[in-house]
Amino acid sequence: MSDIELVSGLSTSSPSRMVLLVLDGLGGLPNPGTGLTELETARTPNLDALACESICGLIHAISPGITPGSGPAHMALFGYDPVRFEVGRGVLSALGVGIDLGPEDLAARINFCTIEGGVITDRRAGRISTDMNARLCEKLAGIRLEGVEADIRPEKEHRAALVFHGSGLSENVTSTDPQRTGLAPLPCEALPGGGEAAERTAAMVNAYLDKVAGVLVDEHPANMIVTRGFAKLPDLPRITDLYSIRAGAVATYPMYRAVAELVGMELVETGPSFSDQLEALQGAWEEYDYFFIHYKYTDSRGEDGDFDAKVACIEEVDRLLPRLIDLEPDVLVVTGDHSTPALLKGHSWHPSPLLLRSRWERRDYVDSFGESACARGGLGIFSAMDLMPLMLANAQRLNKFGA
Amino acid sequence: MSDIELVSGLSTSSPSRMVLLVLDGLGGLPNPGTGLTELETARTPNLDALACESICGLIHAISPGITPGSGPAHMALFGYDPVRFEVGRGVLSALGVGIDLGPEDLAARINFCTIEGGVITDRRAGRISTDMNARLCEKLAGIRLEGVEADIRPEKEHRAALVFHGSGLSENVTSTDPQRTGLAPLPCEALPGGGEAAERTAAMVNAYLDKVAGVLVDEHPANMIVTRGFAKLPDLPRITDLYSIRAGAVATYPMYRAVAELVGMELVETGPSFSDQLEALQGAWEEYDYFFIHYKYTDSRGEDGDFDAKVACIEEVDRLLPRLIDLEPDVLVVTGDHSTPALLKGHSWHPSPLLLRSRWERRDYVDSFGESACARGGLGIFSAMDLMPLMLANAQRLNKFGA
Repeated sequence: MSDIELVSGLSTSSPSRMVLLVLDGLGGLPNPGTGLTELETARTPNLDALACESICGLIHAISPGITPGSGPAHMALFGYDPVRFEVGRGVLSALGVGIDLGPEDLAARINFCTIEGGVITDRRAGRISTDMNARLCEKLAGIRLEGVEADIRPEKEHRAALVFHGSGLSENVTSTDPQRTGLAPLPCEALPGGGEAAERTAAMVNAYLDKVAGVLVDEHPANMIVTRGFAKLPDLPRITDLYSIRAGAVATYPMYRAVAELVGMELVETGPSFSDQLEALQGAWEEYDYFFIHYKYTDSRGEDGDFDAKVACIEEVDRLLPRLIDLEPDVLVVTGDHSTPALLKGHSWHPSPLLLRSRWERRDYVDSFGESACARGGLGIFSAMDLMPLMLANAQRLNKFGA
Repeated sequence: MSDIELVSGLSTSSPSRMVLLVLDGLGGLPNPGTGLTELETARTPNLDALACESICGLIHAISPGITPGSGPAHMALFGYDPVRFEVGRGVLSALGVGIDLGPEDLAARINFCTIEGGVITDRRAGRISTDMNARLCEKLAGIRLEGVEADIRPEKEHRAALVFHGSGLSENVTSTDPQRTGLAPLPCEALPGGGEAAERTAAMVNAYLDKVAGVLVDEHPANMIVTRGFAKLPDLPRITDLYSIRAGAVATYPMYRAVAELVGMELVETGPSFSDQLEALQGAWEEYDYFFIHYKYTDSRGEDGDFDAKVACIEEVDRLLPRLIDLEPDVLVVTGDHSTPALLKGHSWHPSPLLLRSRWERRDYVDSFGESACARGGLGIFSAMDLMPLMLANAQRLNKFGA
């Protein structure tokens, strides 16, 4: 697996253009009726033609068997070891709902829960509706704390993101979720070695939770919250500095825009559709060396368990693909961040199909873009973390290692 | 390669059943006359049908080019990095001959050797017969030491296992084998930093060796022993704790039973034949989540250099396989721990063929179980250490990493 410092040390500049098109959750599992995955089922003349001109393979975001979240999976695609550069759960939640996080802010993920007789009887408050969640978050927005501003916003069902904007806050504090019913919520406590900042933060969190209990006292079933995954923005080396590239992200969903910004990409203004994204790409073509384009709906339809709708999404991308190809990027990669088989209705551990087109690559025998075909591709099965050096190499942006 | 702590942290429980069937030394090399390996030569309708329904690949126990012993190879299959979690040679020898090792015991591997004029003239005592070895071990069993009991048992030819049952013993002492002829055996010495326990242990070992010299003085050619690989039982994380599984081992040979116990599996009572093992498996089916079944004879016949006998062993397993398949494990893996080509009459570095059947895996084009077919399988060529996370993922026993 490539080492980020090694690759960075070899980076040099070149006038070439690289494009990474991520179809979120692209990989799938075969439909038991046909033996074909979503991608293999979709009519994709443009992707297939591209596969013929490309070298193909399969990538693991982390390692075989490990199912990644979208955050870690994208970190790997950008060349960052997602285990080494772990982005805290609270941060991903906050970024996912579009909260602007500063370096001093502290984020957490929260669950609404049900308390009866002092103990938690339902850790998910009966999976309340997202609408009710939004109403409760609005109610909680009225809570005032000294020197700290609490920002709470709904995710889906019983989950929400919480950010304390302030200074001197520490992420070294414990979760208040006891992880099972029949117990009271835990107090937030400083972790060993957390020091005075952690003590102060824990006290602030507990004061906030007391007020939450007061505000929610008459609600049912969501009359309390538990917090977990306290985290601050990690201090990541910037992609621009690492690889001497100007990187632009054409993404529409908050979480992916946020992860791109986290590694130092600039956000390119775009409308919500894939067609809008391609227009934005074209408009910014001269301004960047590396483009990350993120298409979300393949993952969403996979999560829904809707095989046919995921197939349709892939076909939509394929139809518009010539507009991207016409820009003639020197290096073009189409892949997924992880698999989201409709059959599993969620992320999975299966490696993602990948094609890489560049005039400096070998060819293989793959003549259609699909999981089984890519498993026999010329790039083999490799770590997503090796993709960035491979793209840089094909863009002739990496010097030789050693004499 | 997967990280054991990462995988452990993601583990969760599920009602699924996993079976790992290891045909020891399964992989081979082509018969020069036919171009087919032992596995490719064997008539294996059941394994071939299984391969059609499975995803296949090849696994390296350690890394390309490295020939593993059976101990490290099994550690890798169980998810333990065999380099990080090294089990000392003395311990493997002792476990291999069935000596019961306690955490305080000290084990070593010994060679009988020939001494003339105070120097070693043959480090293997002319490869004495295993029978003579057994007779000499019996003679040495009469040696008495203060506070320590010495247990010496024959392995093959000139090799034996020696265990000191006692307390306060240290493994930080040196080998007495000078590694070449023409030199006297070395005294056993404490390793730097070994402390007082090592000093005391070295003195005890030297006292024992003096007595050995006395007992063997009139023997020929085996009139002395040299010791190496002093080791105590390693402190390994238990597989049950790591992955929240109840694991049962259906193995007949002492060393494999011992390695399974070492990682925290329970031993399932079984008779000696593969048919007995399948019966034992069936009997214990409800009691465990994960079964390790070990079949020894493929390795033994490979070590003998008997190509046809190894083929026959594979065919025997294949014939009985339906009894295993009928149990309908959710995840079934058939593989080897390492290769033992009859052509090489010993372990080799060649990766082991592997098939994995689960309803949650992709299919590949492999339609027969053999080395060349598996090299083009959908799992590619990967590290044996990634097998455990892959099995757990297919058993839906691993949570997502990150959000």
